[in-house]
Amino acid sequence: MSSFVSSSVASSDSDTIASQPTLLTRYLQTRQFSESLIQNLSPEDCGLQAMDDTSPPKWHLAHTTWFFETFILKNQLPNYVCFHPQFEYLFNSYYNAIGEQYQRPQRHLLSRPSLEEVLSYRAHVDAAMCALLEDQSQDISNLTELGINHEQQHQELLLMDIKYSFFQNPLYPAVQSKDIWQFANEAPPLAFESFEGGLFTIGAKGDGFCYDNETPSHDVYLQPFKLANRLLTNGEFLAFIEEGGYSNSALWLSDGWAWLQDQPKPLKPMYWLQQENQWFEFTLQGLKPLDLNRPVAHLNYYEADAVARWMDARLPTEQEWEVAASWQTKNMHELGHFSDSQQWHPRGLDQQGPAQQSPLHQLYGELWEWTASNYNAYPGYEPAAGAVGEYNGKFMCNQMVLRGGACVTPYGHIRSSYRNFFYPKDRWPFTGVRLAKSV
Amino acid sequence: MSSFVSSSVASSDSDTIASQPTLLTRYLQTRQFSESLIQNLSPEDCGLQAMDDTSPPKWHLAHTTWFFETFILKNQLPNYVCFHPQFEYLFNSYYNAIGEQYQRPQRHLLSRPSLEEVLSYRAHVDAAMCALLEDQSQDISNLTELGINHEQQHQELLLMDIKYSFFQNPLYPAVQSKDIWQFANEAPPLAFESFEGGLFTIGAKGDGFCYDNETPSHDVYLQPFKLANRLLTNGEFLAFIEEGGYSNSALWLSDGWAWLQDQPKPLKPMYWLQQENQWFEFTLQGLKPLDLNRPVAHLNYYEADAVARWMDARLPTEQEWEVAASWQTKNMHELGHFSDSQQWHPRGLDQQGPAQQSPLHQLYGELWEWTASNYNAYPGYEPAAGAVGEYNGKFMCNQMVLRGGACVTPYGHIRSSYRNFFYPKDRWPFTGVRLAKSV
Amino acid sequence: MSSFVSSSVASSDSDTIASQPTLLTRYLQTRQFSESLIQNLSPEDCGLQAMDDTSPPKWHLAHTTWFFETFILKNQLPNYVCFHPQFEYLFNSYYNAIGEQYQRPQRHLLSRPSLEEVLSYRAHVDAAMCALLEDQSQDISNLTELGINHEQQHQELLLMDIKYSFFQNPLYPAVQSKDIWQFANEAPPLAFESFEGGLFTIGAKGDGFCYDNETPSHDVYLQPFKLANRLLTNGEFLAFIEEGGYSNSALWLSDGWAWLQDQPKPLKPMYWLQQENQWFEFTLQGLKPLDLNRPVAHLNYYEADAVARWMDARLPTEQEWEVAASWQTKNMHELGHFSDSQQWHPRGLDQQGPAQQSPLHQLYGELWEWTASNYNAYPGYEPAAGAVGEYNGKFMCNQMVLRGGACVTPYGHIRSSYRNFFYPKDRWPFTGVRLAKSV
Amino acid sequence: MSSFVSSSVASSDSDTIASQPTLLTRYLQTRQFSESLIQNLSPEDCGLQAMDDTSPPKWHLAHTTWFFETFILKNQLPNYVCFHPQFEYLFNSYYNAIGEQYQRPQRHLLSRPSLEEVLSYRAHVDAAMCALLEDQSQDISNLTELGINHEQQHQELLLMDIKYSFFQNPLYPAVQSKDIWQFANEAPPLAFESFEGGLFTIGAKGDGFCYDNETPSHDVYLQPFKLANRLLTNGEFLAFIEEGGYSNSALWLSDGWAWLQDQPKPLKPMYWLQQENQWFEFTLQGLKPLDLNRPVAHLNYYEADAVARWMDARLPTEQEWEVAASWQTKNMHELGHFSDSQQWHPRGLDQQGPAQQSPLHQLYGELWEWTASNYNAYPGYEPAAGAVGEYNGKFMCNQMVLRGGACVTPYGHIRSSYRNFFYPKDRWPFTGVRLAKSV
Repeated sequence: MSSFVSSSVASSDSDTIASQPTLLTRYLQTRQFSESLIQNLSPEDCGLQAMDDTSPPKWHLAHTTWFFETFILKNQLPNYVCFHPQFEYLFNSYYNAIGEQYQRPQRHLLSRPSLEEVLSYRAHVDAAMCALLEDQSQDISNLTELGINHEQQHQELLLMDIKYSFFQNPLYPAVQSKDIWQFANEAPPLAFESFEGGLFTIGAKGDGFCYDNETPSHDVYLQPFKLANRLLTNGEFLAFIEEGGYSNSALWLSDGWAWLQDQPKPLKPMYWLQQENQWFEFTLQGLKPLDLNRPVAHLNYYEADAVARWMDARLPTEQEWEVAASWQTKNMHELGHFSDSQQWHPRGLDQQGPAQQSPLHQLYGELWEWTASNYNAYPGYEPAAGAVGEYNGKFMCNQMVLRGGACVTPYGHIRSSYRNFFYPKDRWPFTGVRLAKSV
Repeated sequence: MSSFVSSSVASSDSDTIASQPTLLTRYLQTRQFSESLIQNLSPEDCGLQAMDDTSPPKWHLAHTTWFFETFILKNQLPNYVCFHPQFEYLFNSYYNAIGEQYQRPQRHLLSRPSLEEVLSYRAHVDAAMCALLEDQSQDISNLTELGINHEQQHQELLLMDIKYSFFQNPLYPAVQSKDIWQFANEAPPLAFESFEGGLFTIGAKGDGFCYDNETPSHDVYLQPFKLANRLLTNGEFLAFIEEGGYSNSALWLSDGWAWLQDQPKPLKPMYWLQQENQWFEFTLQGLKPLDLNRPVAHLNYYEADAVARWMDARLPTEQEWEVAASWQTKNMHELGHFSDSQQWHPRGLDQQGPAQQSPLHQLYGELWEWTASNYNAYPGYEPAAGAVGEYNGKFMCNQMVLRGGACVTPYGHIRSSYRNFFYPKDRWPFTGVRLAKSV
Repeated sequence: MSSFVSSSVASSDSDTIASQPTLLTRYLQTRQFSESLIQNLSPEDCGLQAMDDTSPPKWHLAHTTWFFETFILKNQLPNYVCFHPQFEYLFNSYYNAIGEQYQRPQRHLLSRPSLEEVLSYRAHVDAAMCALLEDQSQDISNLTELGINHEQQHQELLLMDIKYSFFQNPLYPAVQSKDIWQFANEAPPLAFESFEGGLFTIGAKGDGFCYDNETPSHDVYLQPFKLANRLLTNGEFLAFIEEGGYSNSALWLSDGWAWLQDQPKPLKPMYWLQQENQWFEFTLQGLKPLDLNRPVAHLNYYEADAVARWMDARLPTEQEWEVAASWQTKNMHELGHFSDSQQWHPRGLDQQGPAQQSPLHQLYGELWEWTASNYNAYPGYEPAAGAVGEYNGKFMCNQMVLRGGACVTPYGHIRSSYRNFFYPKDRWPFTGVRLAKSV
Repeated sequence: MSSFVSSSVASSDSDTIASQPTLLTRYLQTRQFSESLIQNLSPEDCGLQAMDDTSPPKWHLAHTTWFFETFILKNQLPNYVCFHPQFEYLFNSYYNAIGEQYQRPQRHLLSRPSLEEVLSYRAHVDAAMCALLEDQSQDISNLTELGINHEQQHQELLLMDIKYSFFQNPLYPAVQSKDIWQFANEAPPLAFESFEGGLFTIGAKGDGFCYDNETPSHDVYLQPFKLANRLLTNGEFLAFIEEGGYSNSALWLSDGWAWLQDQPKPLKPMYWLQQENQWFEFTLQGLKPLDLNRPVAHLNYYEADAVARWMDARLPTEQEWEVAASWQTKNMHELGHFSDSQQWHPRGLDQQGPAQQSPLHQLYGELWEWTASNYNAYPGYEPAAGAVGEYNGKFMCNQMVLRGGACVTPYGHIRSSYRNFFYPKDRWPFTGVRLAKSV
């Protein structure tokens, strides 16, 4: 069985079937949502790429389309005609099994095809996918499910990337034109919730789609631990700065300290700015006064680890996080803050609608939570066969696991076993800090 | 007297006045010609920047406008209202006296202001300049003349830069959509014309606009020399390659040889491509089969020097070139191949319309000719006062002089004393090779 | 209790006391062994540093001395006179709590102090340490124990580093002048030994000295697994090369594949050389014909991971390794191949003296075995207080754990819970590959 | 006639012959002087190389020997046996016609051959050269003369390079142990001497040995100019610093300003140091208080150009310098301060023994004087045939000419037509500033 699969158990629940949208509907909703993300962007904006790790919005729109064309249409739809012979090369991200790739740092140089042509490419592939999905086979549904989830990941990347690009422009453009900004109320005191140790089952349980990196489900033995009731705030990180956290080597990992020496001064979170003694934060809604009661965002692993040490705490392991988060998966999407909210910045606890019942707030959505766990294979892990096997497995080195999703993660994309991963130096993802302690 | 000046002698000639367009007319023609260059480019194309040395077309359109706004309108037009408060920073190229500059390698990140806004900026400044020029003073005319010549330089840079950007795209887009390509007839044999030595006056003689770097006019003593009758051809450079020129260290300057070791293989002129054993050349009209009878273009100084040595010759000094070229300044614009031709690629000798009478062909237009002379100050050189003094003087180090203009140089911009300059490593200018010999 | 401690249980065993050398004896033996390592090196050799990660032999001799002076003598010996006021700065490796450090990549520039002066420095500190140890307190014995173990680590580093330096010299000097080379007999077939899963206790058990990174001892739950009976051989890695392993992207981690693109061609293990179609390996005994039956050495993590995948296997986790290795700790030093052998190159199985009884050969000594585990803190880990807290904890990021020791590791330095760590890219440690499989 | 040649005119002067040492004597004196330079250096010191542009002292001793072996002994001495088969590769600097070279930045890694072996190599070659020179032919005498001059150049490089290496060591070792330091008296006021313009003959006149780059002698036409009576002093450069010269972009060439941005702060001449508000200068005699009346040394071209502009002056062209210097060639060696003085630091005017009669002081020796002239070929220049043709010609790009010699230049090595050359960024040569003005 492929590891990218919706369990048949889920779809056999007749009550659910009635209310659950078909795969075709979900395909079309996902495709449409991607295009909605650029509604305030010009074709010029859609070509921006401000560093090698990011891609232009237009490229994301094309690459997600390439995924369906390459892995499904070319193999499954008889007589499918490729939209353009060179798109296989231009919009391949990293699949060596498919062939060479246009060099990543130069994606911003592809003014041709134009945004308009890329949207035509999308329409061309959508039409073919619709034809195919009406006559779907299991194989196609698994790969389509993977393609939908893949596109959801790129929806988040698109927002991360355009935020980074716009931040380079001293005009500080906003992606969201409507101004919905307001200050949060005071954050509740930081408190730690205790968890028992013991033997726990970790990983995807088979009750819906998951990536291969969440499998196989397996047992781990944990010592007792504590988790913070909420994310760390801007106010708490500002105290860290003001008390010399950036210049106290005792707080930093050796590689973090080395990284710090190369950063421009003054040291601060990536999207913070100080103008005339006032702190601002760049957001997808433009430059805003720093809200001390919202979660601190866009720290990298080194910063997250250092501020945790400064607070006599540590980062949780991914297993600790998953054990704690599994207790409140019910309604996690309702409680969480995801990109459907159209508020692509983490909110204060008071701004999150219905109060969360759990003692652990903000577990889902808001910000990806750094864990102290490296992104490694689970015991017995097998990557999927074929080119899609490159999806996850080959990245299992040098990266750290993040959990829980963010305010730019699509609604419905997240689950308690979901493993995101970035390099310790990375600051452009929507990351946050939940503290942990050993007992 | 400012060194950027149209001599009053020229304008006092009443016969000329009648036929010569006014400064306002020339201002408007120049401004319009800039915008005509992007007629086949999309807004996305206009944001491209493929290396640090180049700028996006949109930036060129804005910066040339900034020049008039900064050096003329802000100082001379009462009540002039700046178009945008941050444009002074965004579109300053390198004038430290004006203030800090947005970092050059990131110009492609300025999706805002949009191309449309930049065109509005141009209209705003044009309206103000028109108002001012109707009531012109001598000061304004000198600076306006400088601004016109400055914009002409950027017209050439815009074409150089977009060529380089488009070359990075494997779709090889064409800037000129109309296909006017045809092969040239066989080039005439390479021959050398002899020149006497002696004392010569070099530099601008004061009969029209010139840059400060062409002054003061001064005497130099030259030994006898010979100059080639035409530019080196692609065919001749192909022979250099085929006979191992790129791998024979004895032909190369030490710095050139070091540069060569870092180049991707196979070694070849920058815009050449070999596909299935056939050579192609990328042009502003797209990818074309290599025409062996056209001049070889886009060599850098190291390559030009090496192929000259391989042919038992050398590059001319700028003084030699100027002495030879001064003998045929009459009708040079009529005979030369400039950007008004709309054929932005060097042509074969037979493709140049009326036969040139001089034994030295292709001196003006076609390709900038590398000289063996460093770009240094002439004896007694004084840069212009104020911020425009940064225009030329501060670049007088590490660069080589090129002479004669190219097929992308605006008509009327060139003269025999004109000194262009680039670094020895630079390949993206429209450069060519005219050989010289000592006697 | 400090985490760097010999348990009092061990020393209360009266039988052992009789036969166990005193701390002073062990101190002096360790100090002497360091100096024996340079007996074939000239003062010029002792200044070599061929890359930033390495240090000159002279620097190792000074820094290990600095450790005793800084952490013991300055604090504990009344009236101790420092040997030289600037040595605190020059020979501090990375202890920010002590102060700034001379920049690591420039250690080769310290021709002064001379080797002779450094040996005088050693004598000066040894004299003071002897005085102190005769009147030892528990505090001093713990730090002395740490200092001895620290110096043992640098004994290995010294050999690793000089090997790398000598390899840059086309004369391929040998550190060991006596030629004791002979080919190994055929390696026994590769076989896999099975291990049950379950709950195991991992980490130092408190029966002797350990580093803080081996603590606290804690329980982990493992799935069943298999381990290879011996290390991978040069012959097996040569087959990997010959069957295209270095050019098959499907075998490589993404970061490994990227690393590979930057390596000089042909791709091969770092110390292999091909001359006239014959393979050689550079060793501390000079250049030797490649012995196909000896273990393959100096692979980095990416290479180790790739060859494991090519053999349908994987690298073991550090927990798997420790569980397996704990079963044969008895006599591990007698069975293992360590630096006291004076044969600083891994041997074939037949060259190891008395046959090992265990089905798992070469677990101790020979080559450090890459594990699939990142170098992270054990649950509840606390670094030692004060500056020595920088010894291990701050490196717990981006590195992988290696286990078992190597032929350049000092005799008596290793144990089953010992955690060595290097970056995935590192090739200059004496690393090897033991394969594992999931069941 | 080879361009490296002692004119027969010189040696036909019978009066001179009597007093002039033979070639063999001069060979041996030169060889001995090289070895005298390392008398205070240890073998460890002789391996130092602190940047790519420099070489270890030992390498200089070997390479100068290689020159005689490669260009003379191998070709001219029948049955000559090479000292070591790999020295041809190890000690070739940049002669591609001879073969590949050991990579320059790694010369410090050659602990083998030892200094002792290199001295044996020297003795081996000296013995063979002596045998050959007793039976000298004209060919050998020309190449020997070249080899002697080549070794003299490396005598200066050796001192430049060890100074740079020792400066990296915070112990600031001295090459000259005897302390002969004293402060200079007040420098005389800066004044400018006027020179007429006109036609002058430049280049070597054929009255003794010269390098090919000084030929052919040729006429140039100069405008009238003025030259400063002495070198710029430390005091004058300190005023430049204190009045903001390093932060005033208007004073700097564009490339100089860019270079400046990458320099560590505070900006200052390379060998200056500020400790507790007092300025020191590192010299080959160790760290000394900055002597305001001595010439400022070790500025690069950018700094020299900037301070000249700050003083409303400019740097002279090499032709201006040569015309002025030719008027006082008589006794230039007696008046100049060269390395035979054993005082390897520029002196104040009062410290130079017999007063110079000329109004232009310090023209020969003390410090190489930056000129505004690029290092280019003279009209009609032809490099020598064969591998020695690589000696000068291939470096004629991107470098500037310096004139006059320095306090580390060997006595007798300099002449008025002598052209030294370095890159504008270079600071480690013994450079100084003589100002010029146009009239």
